[in-house]
Amino acid sequence: MSFFFCFLCASTLIAEDGSRLWLRYAPLERVGYRFERVVADETSPTLGVALRELHTAWKSFTGGEISFSGVTDANTALVVGTGKSKAVNALLPRKALNGLGRDGFLITSVGSHLVIASEGDQGVLYGVFHFLRLIASGLWTGETIRETPAYERRLLNHWDNLDGSIERGYAGGSLWQWSQLPDTLSPRYEAYARANASVGINGTVLNNVNANPQILTRPYLEKVKALAEVFRPYGLQVYLSVNFSAPQTIGGLPEADPLNKDVRQWWQKKMKEIYALIPDFGGVLVKANSEGQSGPQDYARTHADGANMLADALKPYRGIVIWRAFVYSPTQEDRAKQAYGEFVPLDGQFRDNVMIQIKNGPIDFQPREPFSPLFGALRQTPTMVEFQITQEYLGHSKQLVFLAPLFEETLRSDTRAWGEGSTVARLTDATFGSRRLSAIAGVANTGSDANWCGHPFAQANWYAFGRLAWKHDLTSEQIADEWIRQTFTHNEAFLDPVKDLMLTSRETCVNYMMPYGLHHIFAFRQHYGPEPWGDIPGGRADWMPWYYHKADTGGIGFDRTPTGSNAVAQYHEPLAGIYADPARCPENLLLWFHRVPWTHPLANGLSLWENLCYRYDEGVQTVRAYQKVWDRLEGFVDPERFLQVQSRLRTQARDALVWKDACLLYFQTFSRRPIPYELERPVHDLEDLKRQISAVHGGRL
Amino acid sequence: MSFFFCFLCASTLIAEDGSRLWLRYAPLERVGYRFERVVADETSPTLGVALRELHTAWKSFTGGEISFSGVTDANTALVVGTGKSKAVNALLPRKALNGLGRDGFLITSVGSHLVIASEGDQGVLYGVFHFLRLIASGLWTGETIRETPAYERRLLNHWDNLDGSIERGYAGGSLWQWSQLPDTLSPRYEAYARANASVGINGTVLNNVNANPQILTRPYLEKVKALAEVFRPYGLQVYLSVNFSAPQTIGGLPEADPLNKDVRQWWQKKMKEIYALIPDFGGVLVKANSEGQSGPQDYARTHADGANMLADALKPYRGIVIWRAFVYSPTQEDRAKQAYGEFVPLDGQFRDNVMIQIKNGPIDFQPREPFSPLFGALRQTPTMVEFQITQEYLGHSKQLVFLAPLFEETLRSDTRAWGEGSTVARLTDATFGSRRLSAIAGVANTGSDANWCGHPFAQANWYAFGRLAWKHDLTSEQIADEWIRQTFTHNEAFLDPVKDLMLTSRETCVNYMMPYGLHHIFAFRQHYGPEPWGDIPGGRADWMPWYYHKADTGGIGFDRTPTGSNAVAQYHEPLAGIYADPARCPENLLLWFHRVPWTHPLANGLSLWENLCYRYDEGVQTVRAYQKVWDRLEGFVDPERFLQVQSRLRTQARDALVWKDACLLYFQTFSRRPIPYELERPVHDLEDLKRQISAVHGGRL
Repeated sequence: MSFFFCFLCASTLIAEDGSRLWLRYAPLERVGYRFERVVADETSPTLGVALRELHTAWKSFTGGEISFSGVTDANTALVVGTGKSKAVNALLPRKALNGLGRDGFLITSVGSHLVIASEGDQGVLYGVFHFLRLIASGLWTGETIRETPAYERRLLNHWDNLDGSIERGYAGGSLWQWSQLPDTLSPRYEAYARANASVGINGTVLNNVNANPQILTRPYLEKVKALAEVFRPYGLQVYLSVNFSAPQTIGGLPEADPLNKDVRQWWQKKMKEIYALIPDFGGVLVKANSEGQSGPQDYARTHADGANMLADALKPYRGIVIWRAFVYSPTQEDRAKQAYGEFVPLDGQFRDNVMIQIKNGPIDFQPREPFSPLFGALRQTPTMVEFQITQEYLGHSKQLVFLAPLFEETLRSDTRAWGEGSTVARLTDATFGSRRLSAIAGVANTGSDANWCGHPFAQANWYAFGRLAWKHDLTSEQIADEWIRQTFTHNEAFLDPVKDLMLTSRETCVNYMMPYGLHHIFAFRQHYGPEPWGDIPGGRADWMPWYYHKADTGGIGFDRTPTGSNAVAQYHEPLAGIYADPARCPENLLLWFHRVPWTHPLANGLSLWENLCYRYDEGVQTVRAYQKVWDRLEGFVDPERFLQVQSRLRTQARDALVWKDACLLYFQTFSRRPIPYELERPVHDLEDLKRQISAVHGGRL
Repeated sequence: MSFFFCFLCASTLIAEDGSRLWLRYAPLERVGYRFERVVADETSPTLGVALRELHTAWKSFTGGEISFSGVTDANTALVVGTGKSKAVNALLPRKALNGLGRDGFLITSVGSHLVIASEGDQGVLYGVFHFLRLIASGLWTGETIRETPAYERRLLNHWDNLDGSIERGYAGGSLWQWSQLPDTLSPRYEAYARANASVGINGTVLNNVNANPQILTRPYLEKVKALAEVFRPYGLQVYLSVNFSAPQTIGGLPEADPLNKDVRQWWQKKMKEIYALIPDFGGVLVKANSEGQSGPQDYARTHADGANMLADALKPYRGIVIWRAFVYSPTQEDRAKQAYGEFVPLDGQFRDNVMIQIKNGPIDFQPREPFSPLFGALRQTPTMVEFQITQEYLGHSKQLVFLAPLFEETLRSDTRAWGEGSTVARLTDATFGSRRLSAIAGVANTGSDANWCGHPFAQANWYAFGRLAWKHDLTSEQIADEWIRQTFTHNEAFLDPVKDLMLTSRETCVNYMMPYGLHHIFAFRQHYGPEPWGDIPGGRADWMPWYYHKADTGGIGFDRTPTGSNAVAQYHEPLAGIYADPARCPENLLLWFHRVPWTHPLANGLSLWENLCYRYDEGVQTVRAYQKVWDRLEGFVDPERFLQVQSRLRTQARDALVWKDACLLYFQTFSRRPIPYELERPVHDLEDLKRQISAVHGGRL
C-alpha cells in the first residue's frame, strides 16, 4: 500500500466519537443472512428491546427497513420469542428450549426460517444480540447455536462516589447524575444498559465499595429505583455497595454490631424498603474491615457474622450478599497471605446466599499476580472472581492494554483444589461441590466520556469482561477478533495486526512495568507511573514498594517460600512445591515467590539483572512497534478514533520509557551492574525522576 | 571487555571536576622525551610562566622535579629562550628564529639537546605549551617544529554583562567579579589566561557587544587594568566592547555623532586614558546600528564614519577597531542580504586599523549556514570571522556538539573571490590583497562553573577555536584527537569511539534540529528547543520562524534565487550559479536557497519530505548511539566527568526527540504526508509541544 492511500482515504471515513462502542452496526457489503420478515407474537419490554435492536441493526447493516409480523407468513422468517410463542413452538420440537434457563438461548434454522428463542424473554434478548454480533462481525455461519452463561450473575462494580467522582476512574465522571435523579433520566442510562445486555452483563453495583451510607437513605433509593427501571428491560439488575456502619451513621443506632438485634432489625427494614421500591434488587456488596472501612471485627465478630446478618435480611427477597475478601492489616504477616488467613477458618459458616468476592490475585490488581490462594481453599463457600476492568495499575485510560489475556490467565489457572482441572473458572462457576450461586465481577471502566472508557481500546476490556462472564472458555483471540470486527472493520489488513497488538499488549505492559513477578512498585498516589524508591516515613509498610521488591545489593524479590513468609503453602500441591522451587517456579512469577541474587541465572543463561534489563527494554520497544502498526492503519479508521489512539500510544511510549528508566536506574543502585550495552540507554536521570514523580506522587511526567 | 571491568575500574579513577581542562598533565607511563635539566638564561614574567608550566607539567607527568640551570651543563638539556638567550644562540644557527615574529616558535633538536625558542618571550611560551601538548598527548616524535600563527589576533568575545550575567552563557555567571575588582583577584583570572595561552589565544574582549557604557568609566577601567595585569604575562591582551552612544550616556555630550568634534575629542581622551592605564590595550569591538544598539546611522553617518572616528582615536596607540557586520533591519529585504548591502558600498572607506567582524554565516550562528557573502566581497577591508563557541543554537551546555567541523567548514569554504582557493581562512589571514591586519574571534563559552564550560565536551570547542585560530588548516580530527588525549586518555579503546562521536556530533545536531538548510526555527526566547510554529503578533517578521521556513502546503524553504530574494547573487561565480540551481545546490543548503515542493526528489530518489523525516530520525538515533558509546567507556573516565556526560547525553536524547517530533509534526500539517512508516513514530503530540514550548518560550520540556 502506498503512503498516500492511507492519508487520503482516512479523510473519507466519518469521524466517530466512540460512543457507539461495539454496537456500531456498520453497513455491510454482504450481509451473511437474509430474511423477509421478523416474526414475533409476544410482547414484553424486553422483547420490545430485542425487536428494536434487530430493527436498528438491520437498517444500519442494509439501509432497509425490517417488516414485522405476528405470524410466520413469509418464505424466510426470522422468528423471535420465548417458549410461550406460538410461532416458536410451531417450529421447534418440544423441550428444545429446556435447560436454557432465564438467560440461555437457541439460534437455529428450521427449514427456511431462523429461530432465536429462549425460555424467557431475557434469553431472547441475549440471543438477538448474539445473532447481531455474528452478523456484524461477518462470522455468521448459519450453524445452530445453543448457549447458556457460565455465571448466573455477571456484574459490574462501579466505584462511583455520590459526589460524581469515580475512584480509579479514568473516563470522566460518574454516569449517574444523582442530583438530577430520579426526575431526569439521562439517555446514557439506557445506552449503558443496552451495552451491558449486548455482552450479557446482568447486574451492576452502582456505587463505590468504599460506600457512602447515604446511598441507603430514601432519597437515594428513589434515585436507584429510577435507574433500575431504565435497566430492567435490558435484564440488568441493580445492586448496591453498603457501608457496614450504616445503622449508626444513617440509622441513628449506637452501634452496628451484627449480633445486635436492633442492628439486624434495621437491616431487615432497610431491605424491605429497598425491595418495595426495586422488586428485582440483586443484593449488596460489602467491603468490611478493609482499608479503614468498618466491619464486624469492630465488634469482635467475624466476617461470617457480618455477612450472615445481611444475608438473613436479604433472604426473603432472594437477594445475595457479596462479601469482599480484600482484607489486610498492618501486621508482620505477608499481606499476600492475610485474606486466606482470615477467610479459610470461616469456610462453612456463611449463609447460602453469601458469596465471597476475591480479587484475582492476592495483592491488588497488579499487572501480573498468581491467582489468589483463596480460590480452592474456600471449599464450602461460593467464591467469585473480582477483576478490575478499569486500568488502575495498567496505564489508566492512557495506555492500550487489552485485559482479556489477564482475565483468561486467572480463569484458566489450575488450582488443583479438586484435582486437575480445578481452574479458577470452574471453581467459581458452581462446577464443584454443592454450591449453587455463581457470579463474577469486574470493576467498571466506564464514565461520562463520550466514548465511555477514555481510551477507544479500553472499550474492549468492558467487552471482554462481559464475554468471559458469559462464556469463560472463550479465548482472548476470539474476543479480540469479534470486538475489532464490530468496533472497527473486518478487513484483515487491519484485523490481523491490531489483534496481534491487543493480544500482546498486556504482556508488554508487564514488561515495561513489573516483569518477573515484581509488583506494587507503582507511584503511591496516582498508581500510574513508577516509584520503586517510594517511601513515606511513618506510612504502612505494606503500602511501600520496598516491602514488595526488597531490593538491596544482595538481590531482589519477596521470599514467599518456607524460608520466607511461606505464602506458597497456601497453594495446593503440586503448586506449593513448584512455586517454592526457584528452578520450577514460572519465571514470570519468580520475584513474587523468591528473593534471588542479581546474578541468579534464568533459563536463557543470562542473569536475572540482565533479563530484567532486556524485559524492560522489550516493553518499550514493543510499544514503539505498536505505534508503527497503528500509524500504518490510518486508512482503516475514522480520523477521530485514529487520532485518539495515536495520541495515547505516543503517551504510552513516553511513559513506558519512564517506567523502564526509573526501575532500571533505581534497581541498578543495588545490582551495581551495567545495563547490557547493546540496549538503548536510559534518557532520564534517576534523581530527576525521583524528584518529578515523587513530587506529584505518581503523576505522568 | 566484560561488563564488570568497567564498573569496577571506574571507581579507581579519581573524581575530577573538569577544572583542569586539557591541562591535566596526567601521569604518563612512558614520557616520550627525557632530559637532565632545563636551561634558561633570561628572565621575564612570560618566560617565568613558561618555566613554571614546564615544571608543573613534568612533575605531573613523571612525579619528579625538574632541575633548572642558566648554562648548558648537562648531556641532555631542554634549552628554552628567545633570540637574546646565550644558550639558545649557542645551539642555533644565526637567523634560525627569523620570521617567527612575536608569537611563532621553533622546537628542534641540536645534538642531544632540545631547543624551544622564539624571537620574543611570548613565542617561547607558546612553544612550551606546544611541546607539553605533544608530550601529554603521546604524540611527540622529536621532529623539528616551526610554527607561526595563522592570525595575528586570536580573540575571545565575552558576552558578559556588568551585572555578572552572560548573554547566551550556559556555564554559570561571568568570570569577572566586577564588584571585587580591582582589589581582589580571583585565582581563576590567571587560570583563564593560562588556558588561553595554552592554545594560543592572545586577546579577550571582556564585555558584551551589547555594551554597557559604564565599562568606559574610570572605576571600571581600573578593574579592567587589574585584569590586564594578570593576563599580560600570558600574552593575553584586553579589548573592550564599547557603546557607540557612550559620549552621551557617560560623557554628558548632547549627541554621539561621529563627525562632531566634541564627540571625536571625547573618544580621543578616553583612549588616552585607557592606554595610560593599559599600555597594551588591544582595541575596541563595536556593535552599532544593530538590534537596537545606537550607531552612526542615528546621525545619518555611515558605518565607516563611525569606525573611522574610533580608529583615529586608537591609531596613536596602535589599537584597532573591530566593527561588527551583524546588521539587519525590519525591511522587506531578505535579512540574509542586508549586511552585504550595508557594507560592500563602504569597502575602501575604512581606516587601516579597522577590521570588519563577520559572523560565519549571513544569519546568526545557525547549526548550518553557508558562509557569509561578505567574505570576498569586501576586497579592501580586513575582515575577520566571528564564530560562536557558546552553543546558543546548538544545544547550550546540555548537548554534546563538537564545533570544530562547523568552524572548519566555514574556514575551508572557497569563496572564489580571488580565484580558486580563496577560502574564508585565506581571505581573513591576510593572504590576499594589501591587508595587513588579521584576526579571528570566537564568542566565549566560559563561565563560573567549576569546569568552565558547563558540558565537559564544551571545553573542546574553546580548545578547537584556539587551535584553529593558531593554525587554520588543522583538521577537526587532529584537534579532537589531541584534545581527547589530553583531556581523557590515550587509550585507543576510548580515543577512537569518542573521536568518532565528536566528529559526527555537529552533523547529528543539524539532523535533529535543522537539516537541509533549514534555519531559525528555534524557540524564541531560549534558543534551545524547536518552535517552527513560532509567531508573535506584531513582532519583527525576521525574528519569526515562518519568515525562514516559509512552509505551506505548496512546499518549504526560502527562495534566495533570482526568482526570490536573489541572495545568491551576492556570491561569486560559480557559486552564485550553483546555489541558484536546485539540481546543483548542495543538498545540505537546499532549503536555505530554495523553496521546493514537498515531493521534490533528492539525489537518493526520495522526496524532500521523506528525506526530512529520515534526517530527523537519524539525528535522534545517532544521539542514542552516542549514549551507548559513552556508557561502554565508563572504565576509562573518572566518575564525576563520566556521570556529567552521561546525564547530559540523556537530556540530549530526550531533547533531540522533541526537536524531531516538533518539526516533523508541524511540517506534516503542510506536507500532508505520512512519516515513512518504518521510522520510529512521534511520541509527542503537536498541540502539547506547542503548549509546552511556547508557554516557556523555548524551555526544555
